[in-house]
Amino acid sequence: MSVNPKNAGVIVIGNEILSGRTQDLNVAYIGKKLEELGIVLSEVIIIPDLEVEIIDKVRMYSKKYDYVFTTGGIGPTHDDITTASIAKAFDVNVVRSKDAVDRMQKFYKHDQLTEARLKMADIPEGAILINNFVSGAPAFKVENVFVLAGVPEIMRSMFDSLVEHLVSGPPILTASVCTNLTESKLAVGMSDIQKKTQEVSIGSYPFFKHGHLGVNIVLRSTKKDLLFKQHKLVEELVKSLEGKILEIQTPTK
Amino acid sequence: MSVNPKNAGVIVIGNEILSGRTQDLNVAYIGKKLEELGIVLSEVIIIPDLEVEIIDKVRMYSKKYDYVFTTGGIGPTHDDITTASIAKAFDVNVVRSKDAVDRMQKFYKHDQLTEARLKMADIPEGAILINNFVSGAPAFKVENVFVLAGVPEIMRSMFDSLVEHLVSGPPILTASVCTNLTESKLAVGMSDIQKKTQEVSIGSYPFFKHGHLGVNIVLRSTKKDLLFKQHKLVEELVKSLEGKILEIQTPTK
Repeated sequence: MSVNPKNAGVIVIGNEILSGRTQDLNVAYIGKKLEELGIVLSEVIIIPDLEVEIIDKVRMYSKKYDYVFTTGGIGPTHDDITTASIAKAFDVNVVRSKDAVDRMQKFYKHDQLTEARLKMADIPEGAILINNFVSGAPAFKVENVFVLAGVPEIMRSMFDSLVEHLVSGPPILTASVCTNLTESKLAVGMSDIQKKTQEVSIGSYPFFKHGHLGVNIVLRSTKKDLLFKQHKLVEELVKSLEGKILEIQTPTK
Repeated sequence: MSVNPKNAGVIVIGNEILSGRTQDLNVAYIGKKLEELGIVLSEVIIIPDLEVEIIDKVRMYSKKYDYVFTTGGIGPTHDDITTASIAKAFDVNVVRSKDAVDRMQKFYKHDQLTEARLKMADIPEGAILINNFVSGAPAFKVENVFVLAGVPEIMRSMFDSLVEHLVSGPPILTASVCTNLTESKLAVGMSDIQKKTQEVSIGSYPFFKHGHLGVNIVLRSTKKDLLFKQHKLVEELVKSLEGKILEIQTPTK
C-alpha cells in the first residue's frame, strides 16, 4: 500500500458546457468513483473544442497527474476533434483500429455501420481500447490519459470499464452531519475540533432550502477510528448548540 | 462596439465539488449569463480549498482574462480560506470593511450579528463590495476578479448584482434543432453546412433518453441573418434524412 495516494486530473472538453447549454454531470461521477478507489481528484479544467487547447492541457495534465480523464468530443461529427488532438499531443498518427471495428461490428447490424460511424474506430496508434456497452464505439487510453465520451450514460459505462487499469489506494472514508444550524454558529466549535487532528479533514457545506440556510458537515479520512471520534464530537457540537440533526451518515463505507 | 468580445475565466474553489459530493451548478449559470452579455467564457478550473492553489490560479487568470469569477469558500468557517488567499494573491491586507458591516447590520437583527458572522465583513483592502440580497454578507471585486459564494442561490444574487461592472459585447444569438437522428447520420451534411461560413458555429450535442440516442444541434453567431440561413439548412438536412424534429429554437434572442 503506497503512502501517497495516486492523483488525477479531469479535462472536460466542450463549448456546450462553457456556454451553460449543457450541465456537466461527469465531474461529480468521476470524483465520487475516484474517492471510492482512494485516488485524489486534484483538479478539473473545462476547455472549448479547440485543438490547441486540447493539446496543451493534455500534455500538461499527463505530466502533472498519475491519471487523466478527458470527456467529450469523440463522436462522428465535424466538431468532434478530441481524438485527433490527443494523437497530436502524443505525436502519434490516428489509424483505423481493427479491434475497434470488430467491437462495433458486434454492436451494430451490418447496414448500420456507416462510414461516419466507423470514424469512431479511428484511434491514436498504440492506444488501448476501453469497452462501451451503451453505444458500441470504444473509449481509449494513451499513456496515462483515458479518453471518454461526453454523454453521461456512455461516459459512465466507459469509466466503469476502465477501473481495472487504475491502481487504487486505501479508500477515503466519509461521515457527515447535516443540520439546520448556520455556519456562523458552528464556526468556532468546528475549528476547535479540526485542530485536534489533521488526519480527518472537516468540510462545511452550506445549503439553502425552503428559504432557510443549513450546513452539511463532512468528515473524511482513511483512518476509521479517528474519523469515528471526530464525527462524535461534531454530533455533540450540533446538539450543544441546540441544532436539529436533519441527517447523519456514520463512518462506514 | 469592440471587435473582440471580452473573455472570462471561472475558478471553482471547493473540495466538495472535486469529491463529487456537491454537484456544481454555478458554471452553467455564469456561462449562460455571460453568453447573453456577449462575453466569452474561455476556461473553468476546479481546485481544492488550498491557499497555494487559489493564489496561483487567481494570479494566472487575472492576467489571462478580462474578467475572473471565483465561487466558494467565503463563509465564516475554518475551511473558508478564499478571502485571505485572494488578498495574498494581490499583496493586500484583509481589513474589516465598515461598509460591509453596515450592509450586514441592515440585514441581521443586532443579536444575530455574531463575531463569526462578522468575519464575512473582513475583505481585502480596497475591494469593491457586491450586494447579496439572499444572506447579507457581500461579495467583492479586487481588480478584475469577482469573489462570489458557492451556494447557488447566493451566487446568483451576487452575479446579478455585479453585472453593472461588466462591459458587454454584441450578444451571441443561438438557435437549435433537436432531432432523433444520430450524429453518424448527420455528420456529412452538417460538415457541409459548417463549411459555408465560420461566422456561425455549429455544435452537435448527442443525448441519450429512454434508451435512444438523439442530437441537439446548436448554432451560434452574432450575425442574425447568417444564423437564420444556416439554421434553415440544418432544419432541411434533418428533414431530408427523414428525422423527426423534436424541438426547434428559432434564431431570436
